[in-house]
Amino acid sequence: MPTYRLTLEYDGTEFHGWQQQPQARTVAGVLLDAIHRVSGERPTLTAAGRTDAGAHAHGQVAGVSLSQTWEPERLKAALNASLPADVAVVAAMPHADGFDARRDAVDRTYRYVVVCRDGRAPVTRRHTWTVRGPLDLSAMRAAAQRLVGTHDFAAFGGATNPGGSTVRTVHSIDVTQHVIDADEREAHLDTVVITVRANAFLRGMMRAFAGALVKVGQGRLTPEWLSNLIDAGPARSPQIALAPARGLHQWRVSYVQSPAVAA
Amino acid sequence: MPTYRLTLEYDGTEFHGWQQQPQARTVAGVLLDAIHRVSGERPTLTAAGRTDAGAHAHGQVAGVSLSQTWEPERLKAALNASLPADVAVVAAMPHADGFDARRDAVDRTYRYVVVCRDGRAPVTRRHTWTVRGPLDLSAMRAAAQRLVGTHDFAAFGGATNPGGSTVRTVHSIDVTQHVIDADEREAHLDTVVITVRANAFLRGMMRAFAGALVKVGQGRLTPEWLSNLIDAGPARSPQIALAPARGLHQWRVSYVQSPAVAA
Repeated sequence: MPTYRLTLEYDGTEFHGWQQQPQARTVAGVLLDAIHRVSGERPTLTAAGRTDAGAHAHGQVAGVSLSQTWEPERLKAALNASLPADVAVVAAMPHADGFDARRDAVDRTYRYVVVCRDGRAPVTRRHTWTVRGPLDLSAMRAAAQRLVGTHDFAAFGGATNPGGSTVRTVHSIDVTQHVIDADEREAHLDTVVITVRANAFLRGMMRAFAGALVKVGQGRLTPEWLSNLIDAGPARSPQIALAPARGLHQWRVSYVQSPAVAA
Repeated sequence: MPTYRLTLEYDGTEFHGWQQQPQARTVAGVLLDAIHRVSGERPTLTAAGRTDAGAHAHGQVAGVSLSQTWEPERLKAALNASLPADVAVVAAMPHADGFDARRDAVDRTYRYVVVCRDGRAPVTRRHTWTVRGPLDLSAMRAAAQRLVGTHDFAAFGGATNPGGSTVRTVHSIDVTQHVIDADEREAHLDTVVITVRANAFLRGMMRAFAGALVKVGQGRLTPEWLSNLIDAGPARSPQIALAPARGLHQWRVSYVQSPAVAA
């Protein structure tokens, strides 16, 4: 059957996450409804990752097989005409039969966006976590380096399958700062972006990383404490509070094979 | 009477602009309600500028006189506890009697944010204008330079008072580009920010500038056409379509006098 790889962007604020649920508005549910309206088909979707309620995506990848053959740009345009304003197909391409967006993904990148502000930040409130700053970036970077590598990250999240492995390989963590007109504005707005690339993520792992790294930046946890948590092995620490979903941005998924095959 | 200068940030999406109206949710209306709840007073507000419905502010300035004396940080905290999520007081300071946020302002900066995308951009949709790119930045910069200076900008907007002058002084226009991971993402996202600093703005002027500069960037208008429009004097051209309010961000206001006087 003709198989398509769809790249999706969505604002997660008004979705109950990716995964289809009977009574809730979810991204997969809205996408499947649009596919049904444009094609009359009710296929199954595969997805690179299941984002949480309130989390956003810039490069989520879904795989779908349809009995009808579509010119990819026409499929993209038809779906976009049918989808609501908070989700869009940003790319559609034909793919080899049997493509599974989750199984075939070889690495994933997530970003977590923090705004340092003593108070609320209305314009960015749906897409960032506002915390008290300043954050000590060098402490955050030192702590981040201790998370890089292949480790049992059980303290940072749950396996995606019941009884599944909690070992993951974190390729890189970057902590970058964007200061917007710091000395010209009364509202000093520091944005700190945490970018993590890994082969795969446990449930909650990125939000646990962000929660822990912000505490390190505020001087409330040490980089050593994080190392010990990994060394201690399984048993999730109650001290790692998840950062809120609204600051979480799924960013990119990579696949080994060149995607343009079928059609 | 003790006078305070409040700096405000707001997400304009769900407001019918700044100016108080009987039946509509406006920023001034919501702020006056909050002032009444915390102080029991119903003062008048002055504001550096009246933003349009859907436009945002990062450094709007309002002036208010209260019969009661407040410690500024307490006033800020009390108002923030009473204001909804889409508006916040980011700074409060005492000011000399008779402060008028509009009359006393000596220059204003607005930003207009454009996303170049062949299609919708869900995450940024409330805060940017999505246009077909690419935009020719050097053409936009050349056109922008022709707007700098003291001119009759009648073709770009209406006077703020009936019969008032349409002469304004534009100090600078910067056109900057932010490319986010252009070669790594399928969803190529180019953001172009137009920053204009002027002594004051006509109604609609910033949105007319953005609309015209984007057309220049797309090759649909020439920089010369803009110059001719200024030289032609009054009578607004029907060819300048206003860019949508959602991409407009009030940024900053400057005052000559040092603000910390009263209290």
